[in-house]
Parts: sequence; C-alpha cells; structure tokens
Amino acid sequence: MATSTKPPSGMRDFLPADVARRNYVVGIVRDVYERYGFVPLETSAIENLQILLGKYGEDEKLIYRILHRGEELQRALDSGRDLDADALSDLALRYDLTVPLARVVAQYANELPKFFKRYQIQPVWRADRPGKGRFREFYQCDVDITGTESPLAEAEVCAASCEVLGRLGFRDFTLALNHRQLLRGLIRAAGIPTEKEGTALTAVDKLDKIGGEGVHDELGQRGIDHDAAHRLLQLIDRPKDEPDRDRLAALREELRDDEGRAAIDRLEELLGLLAATPAGPYVRIEPTLARGLGYYTGAIFEIHVADLGSSIAGGGRYDELVGMFGKRKVPAVGLSLGLERILVVMGERGMYPDLAIGPQLLLCWLDVDRTEVLAIAHRLRVQGLRIEVYPEPAKLGKQMQYADSPGVRAPWCGILGKDELARGEIALKHMASGEQTSVTIETAAATISIRGE
Amino acid sequence: MATSTKPPSGMRDFLPADVARRNYVVGIVRDVYERYGFVPLETSAIENLQILLGKYGEDEKLIYRILHRGEELQRALDSGRDLDADALSDLALRYDLTVPLARVVAQYANELPKFFKRYQIQPVWRADRPGKGRFREFYQCDVDITGTESPLAEAEVCAASCEVLGRLGFRDFTLALNHRQLLRGLIRAAGIPTEKEGTALTAVDKLDKIGGEGVHDELGQRGIDHDAAHRLLQLIDRPKDEPDRDRLAALREELRDDEGRAAIDRLEELLGLLAATPAGPYVRIEPTLARGLGYYTGAIFEIHVADLGSSIAGGGRYDELVGMFGKRKVPAVGLSLGLERILVVMGERGMYPDLAIGPQLLLCWLDVDRTEVLAIAHRLRVQGLRIEVYPEPAKLGKQMQYADSPGVRAPWCGILGKDELARGEIALKHMASGEQTSVTIETAAATISIRGE
Repeated sequence: MATSTKPPSGMRDFLPADVARRNYVVGIVRDVYERYGFVPLETSAIENLQILLGKYGEDEKLIYRILHRGEELQRALDSGRDLDADALSDLALRYDLTVPLARVVAQYANELPKFFKRYQIQPVWRADRPGKGRFREFYQCDVDITGTESPLAEAEVCAASCEVLGRLGFRDFTLALNHRQLLRGLIRAAGIPTEKEGTALTAVDKLDKIGGEGVHDELGQRGIDHDAAHRLLQLIDRPKDEPDRDRLAALREELRDDEGRAAIDRLEELLGLLAATPAGPYVRIEPTLARGLGYYTGAIFEIHVADLGSSIAGGGRYDELVGMFGKRKVPAVGLSLGLERILVVMGERGMYPDLAIGPQLLLCWLDVDRTEVLAIAHRLRVQGLRIEVYPEPAKLGKQMQYADSPGVRAPWCGILGKDELARGEIALKHMASGEQTSVTIETAAATISIRGE
Repeated sequence: MATSTKPPSGMRDFLPADVARRNYVVGIVRDVYERYGFVPLETSAIENLQILLGKYGEDEKLIYRILHRGEELQRALDSGRDLDADALSDLALRYDLTVPLARVVAQYANELPKFFKRYQIQPVWRADRPGKGRFREFYQCDVDITGTESPLAEAEVCAASCEVLGRLGFRDFTLALNHRQLLRGLIRAAGIPTEKEGTALTAVDKLDKIGGEGVHDELGQRGIDHDAAHRLLQLIDRPKDEPDRDRLAALREELRDDEGRAAIDRLEELLGLLAATPAGPYVRIEPTLARGLGYYTGAIFEIHVADLGSSIAGGGRYDELVGMFGKRKVPAVGLSLGLERILVVMGERGMYPDLAIGPQLLLCWLDVDRTEVLAIAHRLRVQGLRIEVYPEPAKLGKQMQYADSPGVRAPWCGILGKDELARGEIALKHMASGEQTSVTIETAAATISIRGE
C-alpha cells in the first residue's frame, strides 16, 4: 500500500514519552498561571473565516481554510463564477489564541468578569515553511488580561511568564521590553515622515534576523532616505551595557513629542513594578524590539534564552483588537509562551526530570487461571499502582524480558504461579537489581514504594 | 460590524467553569487508564486525506477537508479539468482516534512495544448535523491494546472503562456485549444468504433507533425475505430477564456452523474474565448489538446509562485495520468513551463536585505603593495561594464587590492599607461570613486553609 503513514509535513505525532514531557511543562504552566489568578479558556479549533481575515497582515495567506462540503461545494463549483479560495471556504483553523480571545470577550461580555484573566493552552495551525522548532501544528500557551489599562496588568503577565520559566529551570533568559509609542516616537525623531512609520516598524522588526546593515538597506528599499535610516539605527541600537534607567533617560532627550515621552513614563513605571516580581532580574529595555503583529498599541515584550536565535515568548498591549468584534473598546495585554521552542531547548539541555510513564509493574503469570490474574491486578491497582498484565500465555522468561523492552521499561515484575496463589502472595522482582521477594498482595504497593524504581 | 462572534455551528467555546468540569473528568480518565498500564498518545489534528478515505463507509462525506493553498490551489483551479473535492484538497481533519492509532502502529513499529496499550484524549471533527450531546468538534477518550488476540485485552479495556464510569459516580450503566461472528452466525442461521450478511448487519444496527418492526421493514427493503427477517428478529430479540449464560447456551443451539460457536466460546470466556473486574456487575450479553463501523471483527461492546437514548461508549475488536497501513497484520481491541455525552449526563444529574477555579483571594489595596502590592502578592503565591490583584485604584468597597461578581467569586479578600503595610500584615475578609481578621503575610495561607472557603 503506497499511502505514507507519516503525519503530514510540519505536523507531528507525540509518542508516550513525548506526551509525558509536554504534560510536565503544561502542568507547571497551569499551576503558575492559576496562582496568578488566571482561569482556563478553550475555544473552537475551527473559526468562521471572517473572524480571522484582516488580523494577521501578510501572514493571512498561511491560514488553513476548510473546503466547503456537499451541496455548498457543488453550488460553488456550478456557479460559473471565477473560483478562488473565498468562494470555496468560509471556515478556517485557529491561527493564534489572541483573536479567538478577542472574539470571546466580545461574545460573552455578560458572563465574563470585568477583568478577564485567562490562560489558554491549545494548538494553532499555520501553513508556514517548517523549520527547527517551527511546525504547522503547534501549541501556544497564552496568558492575557482584558478590561484594564493599568500597568499592573503588564506586570502580572510578565511576572507569571518569568515564574513559569524559572520553575522549568531556565536561568539565563532576558525579558526584552519596549513600547510601540516609544518606537514610533523615535522613528519620528529620526526624521522619518509619519506616513512611513508603519513600514519603518516592519523593517526594524527584522533587526535580529538581518542585522543593522540589513535593516538600513530594507529602510532604503521602503523609501526612507539614507540619513533618516542612519539616525534611526543610531537611536535604537544602544550600547549593550547601558543600564535601563539611563537608557530611558537618554531616549527621552531624543524625543520630539509627548506621545513618545508618555511611553517612557509608562516603561519607567513598569520597570519599578517588575522589580517587585519574579520578572525583576530578567528585564531589559530594548528599543529595537518591534514585534511584527499589527495589533499592538502599547508596551511590547519578548523573552529570549541564550542559545536560541528566536524568542521563546512574546506579547504586548493591544487595546483596539477586541473593539473590532463588538461595540465596546476593551483594553488588553497578553503574552504567549512558545511551548514547542521551550520543549526543544529543554530537551537539548537535558532539563526534564525523570518522568515515570507506563506500568510500574508487569504482572507475569504461569499455570494459573487468568480470572485470578485479573482479580489480583485489580487489587494491586486499588493500591494506586500502575499495572500491566502480560496478555498471553508465555514462558516466564519471555514475559520478564518484555518488561525490559523499549516502550515498556517496567521497573518491577510481579510473578503469579500456583505456589504464590496458594499462599495469597506475589513474587516481586526488581528489574534493575534482580532482587526478588514474596509479599502478600495487599503489601505490594508498600514494598514497591519503599524500594523505589 | 456584522461578523458573528459565536463559534461556527456545532462548535463550542469552553468558558473557565466548563474547562474545569472537562479537566475534572479527563483527570479521572487519565488516572484510571494509567493504573491499567495505558500510556498517552497524541496524533496530528490534520491527516493526509488518503489515510482517512475508505475507512468510514457512508460517513466519509462528513470528513472536513482542508482547501489547497497558494500555488497548489491555483494549479488546481487552472487545470481545466472538472473540479471536485479531491482536486481541491489532500489534507483533512482527524475523524476519530482509531484510524490515527492504526497509522501510528504501522509507522512506529520499531519504537512501540509489542503490546501497545495507549489512551488518547483529543478532539475529532465531523460535519454531522448538530444535536443534543452531538457536536461537530468533540473530544473522544479512546483506550486500545494492539498486538494481541488474547481476550485479556478485551477484559482490560472494558474493566478500565467501567472503572472510569464508577469513579465518576455512575452506578446505573450496562456494558452490552456481543460478537460480530455470533451476529453473522445468527444471520446465516435465520436463512439469510451469505452475500446479504453485511446489509442485514446494517439494518440490525438500527434496532435501538427504529425498533423491531422498523428493522423488519428495513431488512425487507434490503432484499431479505419476510420469513428470514422474522426469524432473525426472533433469534436476537431475547427476553429481558434471560441470564447471560442461558442466553449464550440458547443461541449456541440455534447456530449452524463453527464460526458462530467459536464466538460463543469467546463470549463465555470473556464473561468469566470480566466477572473478576470492576466491569463484572455491569455486563449484559446483547445479541442485537451490531455497532455500525465496518472494521470490527470480533467482540463488540457498548455502554449505556439509563436516561440517555444513545450509548456513552462503544468499541470492539478490529484485527484487520492496522494491516491496511502496513505489511504486518496487528490485532487490536479498543473502546471509546463519549466524553461530551458523559459531561452532559453528569451536568444534568449534578454529579460534579465543587471545582475551585479562579482566585482564592482578591488582593485589594488603598493608598499604598503598587510595587508593595505586587511584592506581597508574590509572597502569598509562594505559599501556594491563587491570588488576583485588583488592577486599578478604586474604593475598597468597589474592589470587594468585584470579588463577589460572577466569574470571579473569590472566597476571600485580602486588604492592604497603610496600617497593614506598617505592621507587615494583611487584613483577611471571609466573603461568605463577613468575618475579618489581620494576620502576618506569611501566615495567610494557613489561616485560609483552616477556615476554608
């Protein structure tokens, strides 16, 4: 049969050991976010296409659309009009977790609290070119607060995310902090005309990928003259060891209008708040940080670890997005953890603890009634043990060999023969040491927990 | 703006209280399945269309297909050939968890144990007509054992699923048990010709929906003569109070060939095994049970609760499916729990415990530095408390009112004013009783845990 049994390009299956690692990380994310008062939200994987269109700029072409079915498809095909993607679909797969949140906040206004603090851990789909740590189906872990413009919201979102990373064992990360209005103010201060602010921002966003000269060229291609481009890069590309407070003070001097200065005020306040949280040691003011997405309106942030080119988290304030779906303007701020990249780095660095999956004990049996075997398996499971029963009649040696095979790795075998059954006992064999001892069924769990694995 | 902010038809958003209930149920499913030695698997949401085609019979039309993108779409549109769904898509959304399992077993043969005991809890998508407890995106909880023909596998799968239901609080359910070869044997014994076995099976499958007369008519429409149809219904529609062993003995007398009798042997053995497990009290031999899906080859089962028309779980043995994807024949048996229906019934019957979500304490503050508020929030969270900080300056009354608002319902308020800060204390107000007491920050968690919520 010619059909490939691999998952589609850029998609993955997670075998049990993978799932265990993912669950370990997700468990810590949930625990920390819940202690910060966030509550879980889940949204439908499929969205009405109209909800997604116009939100992601050029990346909109990466959205996976669902093909019409049945009569609807037939009508489109029979319509005689020129066919395109819009004629063939009106549903699409979730592209991120922020737009669905905005939709939810607009839809369930009466059921949600004024300050909606939600976390959401679900897959998203993007028809992007697959690469290292970049997949077409991947999980995002988002945390957002809607309903307030208070900088406490920025602080809480950043603090929670840094605490997650700390709990996972990360020490060498930085939380880069900038403000859209500061960056726009600097673009204006460099002498770039207002109508070119957006395009300049897009060029600056590529700084970590293409470097200063690359951005300079890109600004030129976008119709910004040499001097202004040079001046902008000078303004934002600061000495590495410049302290944050000094950096903000220096930038304040360069600004020509109040909007940029208000952004500086906000960043100074945020620095003070973050100092009191687990994010404190990691914060760094980074005027080159632009963040690609169009919807940010205020503070923006990104988290980097030393040995990964791209960021492992990013976010910011977006006060206009929810309003696109409803009558109300609802300010919001959020941060998205890149679960896949975190998992990749943790794997490379050996940051996972021993994660027990699979059976603790393989129940082996010889010359006994299988009904008795199942009854004893039940008595062992009631004690909380993870028990696998060898399913077929086989020699004891073969059964115990199976306990050691890849994908099983049961640390214990429990052996049931006629003698054991007659005495109401089970022979426990510790696979690593080879030690064997007979105990009553009811004390098996205690024996195993004392000896460990 | 005209765009609806509802999720698409048949899809749902889960607000925090919904997610908490789902997580509660999923947590119990995972715990029980892991004690039975099952390990978690997750597969990609998107499958190559070829993997799904030819597996679901007439229901294939309910598969959601992904529209081609970019150049691939353009090539299809420009090709000049008659367009249909196959020309416009080669990817599709997961339709169940069994076909992906079969693909995984074929693909990762060298990495998986010989007896692969996996559970999988993920959403599937079907473009079905939405109804009560029936959605277009819904979770399945599947448990399967591949690699063995042993009836211990059937017994373990049924026992684990019944134990899940028991742990969730279900008492009044039945596990209906039948065997495809018994049903086929009875169809032959009724005088229905071999080539009509399949179509007769499809008709019998509708018995619980359309009743005996309905099936009789349907058998007639499918070209089966009146007498044979009558005889088949007489054979399978047994007295309600007939004991299982008597029922099997009576059916054995009716069979004309060895295949059906071998199925009876198997069911008798399975009855004995199940008696030793948590499934024992719930088993019922049900010769009318047919199960729609084409791929079953042996024992089949279905779980019903008293007040729900449709089943809440179903499964069976399918020894040929994995072989469709690889060179090896791999026997398999599994059972799928209908998570959505379980949730619906549990909701209607009030079977959920109190599930604490959201903050335990809302931190309210007046005339103090916000940096101090965040520092104290951190000290409280370190104690394991779920803390929300009121994000904006406001009167204390307004802040405490917010603790009581829908979607928040914090059982405690912690109040920080100048006096409390000066003493290194926090005033704790128990919202239900109105009692208030001042304690040091470090003893707040202890106070709250003693007093409860």
